[in-house]
This record gives sequence, structure tokens and C-alpha cells, in this order.
Amino acid sequence: MRVGLLGYGNVGVAFTRLIDSQAEAIALRTGIELRVTRIAVRDLDRQRPGTARADAGERLCAQSAALVDDSEIDVIVELVGGIEPARSLVLSALAAGKPVVTANKELLAYCGAELLTAAEKGGVDLFYEASVAGAIPLVRLLNDSLAGERIVRVMGIVNGTTNYMLTSMSEEGSEYATALAEAQALGYAEADPRADVEGYDARAKAAILAGIAFDADVVPSDVYTEGITAIGASDIAFAHKLGYEVKLLAVAERVGDGSTPSVAVRVHPAMVPREHPLASVRGAFNAVFVEGDTAGELMVYGRGAGGMATASAVLGDVISAMIPPASSVHPTHELELTDDVVSAFYLHLEVDDEPGVLAQVAQVLGSNGVSVKSVVQKGLGDQARLVMVFHPVLESRFRAATAELAALAVLRAPPRAIRVIEEEFG
Amino acid sequence: MRVGLLGYGNVGVAFTRLIDSQAEAIALRTGIELRVTRIAVRDLDRQRPGTARADAGERLCAQSAALVDDSEIDVIVELVGGIEPARSLVLSALAAGKPVVTANKELLAYCGAELLTAAEKGGVDLFYEASVAGAIPLVRLLNDSLAGERIVRVMGIVNGTTNYMLTSMSEEGSEYATALAEAQALGYAEADPRADVEGYDARAKAAILAGIAFDADVVPSDVYTEGITAIGASDIAFAHKLGYEVKLLAVAERVGDGSTPSVAVRVHPAMVPREHPLASVRGAFNAVFVEGDTAGELMVYGRGAGGMATASAVLGDVISAMIPPASSVHPTHELELTDDVVSAFYLHLEVDDEPGVLAQVAQVLGSNGVSVKSVVQKGLGDQARLVMVFHPVLESRFRAATAELAALAVLRAPPRAIRVIEEEFG
Repeated sequence: MRVGLLGYGNVGVAFTRLIDSQAEAIALRTGIELRVTRIAVRDLDRQRPGTARADAGERLCAQSAALVDDSEIDVIVELVGGIEPARSLVLSALAAGKPVVTANKELLAYCGAELLTAAEKGGVDLFYEASVAGAIPLVRLLNDSLAGERIVRVMGIVNGTTNYMLTSMSEEGSEYATALAEAQALGYAEADPRADVEGYDARAKAAILAGIAFDADVVPSDVYTEGITAIGASDIAFAHKLGYEVKLLAVAERVGDGSTPSVAVRVHPAMVPREHPLASVRGAFNAVFVEGDTAGELMVYGRGAGGMATASAVLGDVISAMIPPASSVHPTHELELTDDVVSAFYLHLEVDDEPGVLAQVAQVLGSNGVSVKSVVQKGLGDQARLVMVFHPVLESRFRAATAELAALAVLRAPPRAIRVIEEEFG
Repeated sequence: MRVGLLGYGNVGVAFTRLIDSQAEAIALRTGIELRVTRIAVRDLDRQRPGTARADAGERLCAQSAALVDDSEIDVIVELVGGIEPARSLVLSALAAGKPVVTANKELLAYCGAELLTAAEKGGVDLFYEASVAGAIPLVRLLNDSLAGERIVRVMGIVNGTTNYMLTSMSEEGSEYATALAEAQALGYAEADPRADVEGYDARAKAAILAGIAFDADVVPSDVYTEGITAIGASDIAFAHKLGYEVKLLAVAERVGDGSTPSVAVRVHPAMVPREHPLASVRGAFNAVFVEGDTAGELMVYGRGAGGMATASAVLGDVISAMIPPASSVHPTHELELTDDVVSAFYLHLEVDDEPGVLAQVAQVLGSNGVSVKSVVQKGLGDQARLVMVFHPVLESRFRAATAELAALAVLRAPPRAIRVIEEEFG
């Protein structure tokens, strides 16, 4: 299957590398052979970083329209961005009966209805998972999983920059200006941060999501929009006192009852109860909460931006464009199963309160190569206990150590161990 | 499109009601007309609750095999449960080139590879989203969205009963026995709770997930399994002290490097860092965290069980079986947009410290029908401020009130308002 690529920026380079390096694995898994055969760019002479040029090889060309018409191309991937010429190129591909995959947020937000109608007319599919929230499978959730569902509300954190800033204000007590400067220093926010902090990025995504969830033609200017510029550290302190976190939410929901149903689509900051799943979405992560009449509450979570995550979503769409979904599974190639892995552990020992207990325990641990990270409690008296956390170790070793410990006369109960997930998060 | 249903228990009744009541809306949205035309049950004479019998109407029959062979049926939905006769019925439908949708966990866990091979041979699709985690779109995430992705790890909370118990032990300090009795009283746990607390339910799901994520043939007996019966309140107290929550996890991950890759599939309790998204999954909810090489970290979350959620997943699969995914979108029917909705609010006022301020503010609020839920702070001196939370109110009224407040001479800065999401969660 020959993929024609329009645009060769961040996402285009990541996508081309992904297909170039994974082609064999993808063929093994899905049964289809993918190749990026042509890449159209606006300016052939523009200097590109050496590796990007090498990745593109002989495939670069300057004729987007000719690439779309090329009968040797099976699927068009549009990564040009913006409305024109992206819109005309996509329309022309769809009219020619060629499936299109796009990661273009503006295009979907402003021209989504037009493009989907053109796709239907052309009898061909338009895929746009990557246009909303990177690798987070929101379009598939709403279009496929919930195809028969009456959606009540879609509510989410769809802008990583503002969530990064609000997280830092929440966790470090920073003021807005400090959080913004920090986000700019880290490259999360632009020098002109308005697209993020005024909520414009979020409202384009809200328009796309509302369109899918409610089959409605919503454009960004329909969306009531309030950014985070007025949020201060003291608001967040009060939110904490009340049991909330402050988040910038995009919300699309049914309002009113049967006779005059309507949809409200909005972007605004909101206090979210600390125990709500959206409240624990930290840093640059995105998450969208969907409520359906029968499916109940669902949430999808992940990195909503970035070249790699977006390229992954584009690839998923390209594969869907080439094959019907369930057939993508080719079961059971041989793979070895193992049950001896490396884990960190917590260990709880109820011990006699007598001299030398710790030495005995330490000897058993040491001889099995189990290394203590911290001793959490070393109690005395009847309730004497030794609670420790260990560095990651091969589980068979840890089991050998606990078996030896269990046999020690100073133990008043069998050892209790629980694995510890160590990675940092958010 | 005529749906033939095998089995008419909880999920079957919910699914039939869903299609019966939503047929028109589904046709409008997806362009296909769905009808459950026949329902096979083991025992026609069994007493069924009055409403279930009425829902089934004249469609009940006792001949499962004949239903599968019926040329008038376009798709088979298998909700019988267990291995046989479900396995033979599904194999016979696939061999006849009929797509099958199933919610059968045991069947997929033990015979998944056999069924998928049969589907491929029959040139037809087998859908099984509902067999893993209710309405949570895990199968679509792994099979479609991440079709081109090298999965590194799948790690999740896939048993609602044990998560309910662990949440109650964590939040109320209950001991294991108390939490179990409570879960039993609420109907979350069975009288014989072993399938849940010993991890057997989770390990069947782990086997299915590992099969999809790593194209491997894993059966439940391959899965290292440790339940939660040994977890005590003191372990959870120590976990809190260390910054963790204790969760029962199903984990499937690649281990080792290039030359001898293998997969470890396990179910065990683990301490999860409090800031990890899995740590905030409370009560009977499920969530699965997926890490891919390029997509990064993704999580899907929702109700992993229950007749309604499972019926919703079955319906999504039935629609996918009938139409290719992207074509399911029929854009833009007319729908009214509204931007005046009801919201709860937090309001922060910096005011002069003089007599009568509260009275002035209260008068403005009252005359606009805005009702105070609580006054959070009423400060004095230079930093005098009035921080309040309000009951839900039509936003236009609240805006009118804040506009009037802004005009009061006693305000030292413009009023700052943030919406408050009020619902309880978990």
C-alpha cells in the first residue's frame, strides 16, 4: 500500500520514520505492507535538517496536486496544516475516491462537515483521529465504540500547556505569571501564548468533539470561550480548601429536555472535585471524559500533542483506511512467556522484639542479593514489626529471600510482600 | 440488518431493550436499521420476569444451532457465556461466513486464538470488545488505534469488586474482612468471592489483553496470579505513608531485550504512586494503562462490568460488524446551540473592609436569584475578601449579578468567578 504524504514538518518526519522502521513489524501484525512513496512539500529548496532530508530520500516533490492525482497512491496523509491549500487537496482526494488521513485541527474544526459530506459522496473514508488529541483515541471512542450510544456529555482537558501551568500553580503555589514563564522556558508555551491561555486551541478541539458526539455542525466561533489568564494562586488555594482542583475544561453537553433539545459547547476553567478522574490529570497530559446513556462514564487519557504521539495516531488511521478493523488481528505467533521479572517490593514482617532480629533479617536479604531501599518502621514490643522497601530485584530472588525469612524463629507471622510500581508520573 | 441473539440473561435483555428503543436514532446516526429478530434460549419454559418476556415477544426460540444457520440473520451476538456450547456455536457461525459479536470472557480467554483463526478462515470478523471490560474500548484501542504500534506494557485495574474493596480499605481504613462483607452486602462481591479476591477474573482478562497487545496465545493458566486476600489495613496505611495506593493490577509486558524477547503476564496487588493515574481509579471503576513505543502512555477508564455498559459495547461491535468505521459519521443534522446553561460558581471578591459590605453584596445576589451555598472566607483589613460558593444557577443570571457587583464602590478589583463541577464521583 502506497502512502502519499502532504507536508513534511515534525509530524511528517516522525510518521515517515515510523513507517520506514516498522514496515516489517506492521506487515507481520496486520498483513499489509505500507510504504511512503511520495512526499509533497511547499518548497523543495528549503534547508531541512540532515536526517530529515535523508529520511525523505528521493521521495520529496513540490507538486501536491499531482501527488493527490497520482494513481499509484492508495491513501493520502494530509499534514500540511491550516485551511488552504489543505482543504482543496483533501476535497480533491476524496472526490477521486481516495481515502484521506489528516492531523489538521483547524481544517476539521472549520470545515469538518464539508469534508465528511465530501467523503460520503466519494464513497470513501476520512480519518482524523490525530486532529483532536494526539494518540488519545477519542474519535474512535465516539464514532465506533459509542456508535449506538446517546451521548450526554463530553468534558475534557484538551490543552496540555494550560494543564501544565495549572498543575504547577496547584502543586508549587506559583502565580500565573511564574507558571507561564516556566512553561515558556520548557517549550510548552509559545512566546505569544494566547492560543493556549485564552482557550483558542481548546475551543477548536471542542468544536470537533461536539461535531462527533452530537452529529452537529459546530465551528470554533460557536464556542463560548474563557481562558485561564484570570486564575490566581489564591483561587487555587481556595479550591484546595474546598476539595477541588482548577482545570481548563472543554465541555459539550445536551441541555434542556425532550421537546427542545440543544447542545452547549464551551471552554472555561472549572473547579473539579479532587476525587473526579479529571482532577488527577497532571502536567501536559490530556484526558476526555464521556458520559453516555448506557455506557455510563468513560475516560480516555494520554499525551494530546507531540510529533511522535500524533504520528502514531496517523499510522493507526492509515492502517484502518487500508483494512477493516477486526481483520487486523493475526493471532498467535510464538512468543515466550516468562514469570520471572524484576520488581520493587514492600515487605512487612511481624517480628519478636529481641536483639539481633534486624541482623538476622539483613543477613537473609543480603545473601539473596535483595537490597534495602528504606526501612519504613522498626517497631518495639508486642506489635514489633519491620517494614521495608527494596530496590528492584529479580522476583525469584526475592521469593527465595522471603521463603528463608518465613523460616526464621523470630517471625511471628508469615512475611507480607507487595510489589511497588516505581515510575515517576506526570 | 437482522441480529440473532444467543442467550437472554442480564446483558441480552439490556441489549435487546437498547436496540428496540434506539433503533430509529441509530438508523439516523449510522444509516443502518438494526433489529433483533430471533433470540435463542436454553429453556423456553423458564420463568422470566414479566418485562423481559414482553421485550422478547415472539422472538424466543430454543434452537441455537438453527438460529446460527438461519440465512435471514446477518450477525450473531453470543451472550450464552462459558465455553460450550458457546464455542461450537461461534465456530459454526464463523465457518458460515457470519460475523459474530461476543461478550464471553471465558471463551475469549481460553479459545481466543482458535476463534480468531476461524474468523480469518471464514473471511469474517469476530468482535469481542464487551468480553474484557464492559464499555471500556480496550480492544479497539489495541487493535485499531495502536495497530501500528509496538506495545511495551499493558497494566490495569480490571476487577471492580477488588477495587471497590481496596478503595474502601484505603478511604475508611477498613480491614479486609469488613471491606469484603460490605462489598457482598452491596452485591459487588459474590457469596463465594474467590473468583474476584483470588484474582481469577482478572487473570482471564489479562490473558485476553496479552493476546491482543502482543499477538500471543496466552490462556489464564499461563498467568501468574496473586489475589488481595493477604492485604491488611496496616499495609495500606504504610502505603499511604510512602505515597502509594494499593491496587490489584493485571500486567502484560515485554521483558528482556532484542535477542530473546518474551512477555510476562501477571495479576498481583501493587503499590501505585499516588500521582499515577491508576492510583485515582476508585470504587468499582476499571482502567487500563497502555504504553507504546511512539504513542506514549494512554489510559482508558470506565465501568468494566454491568448489563448496561456491556450491552453498549455489544451494540458498538454490532454496528462495526455492519459498516466500516469511518462511514458511521453522518454529519450535520440541525441542532440548536445554546450558551446559557446552569452552573455552580465560586466567586472571589476583594472588598473594602467597612460595615455593610456583605449586605450590599447579598442584596445584589438575592435580587438576581443567585443563592449562596457557603461563605468560604470573609477577611478583614487591607486584604479583605469575600469568597463564596453558589448553588447552580442559570449563567445569564450569575453574569448579571457579577456585572452589578463589579459596579459597587466597595469592590477593590473585578470579581473573579470560576465554575464548580458538583457531581459526586467513584
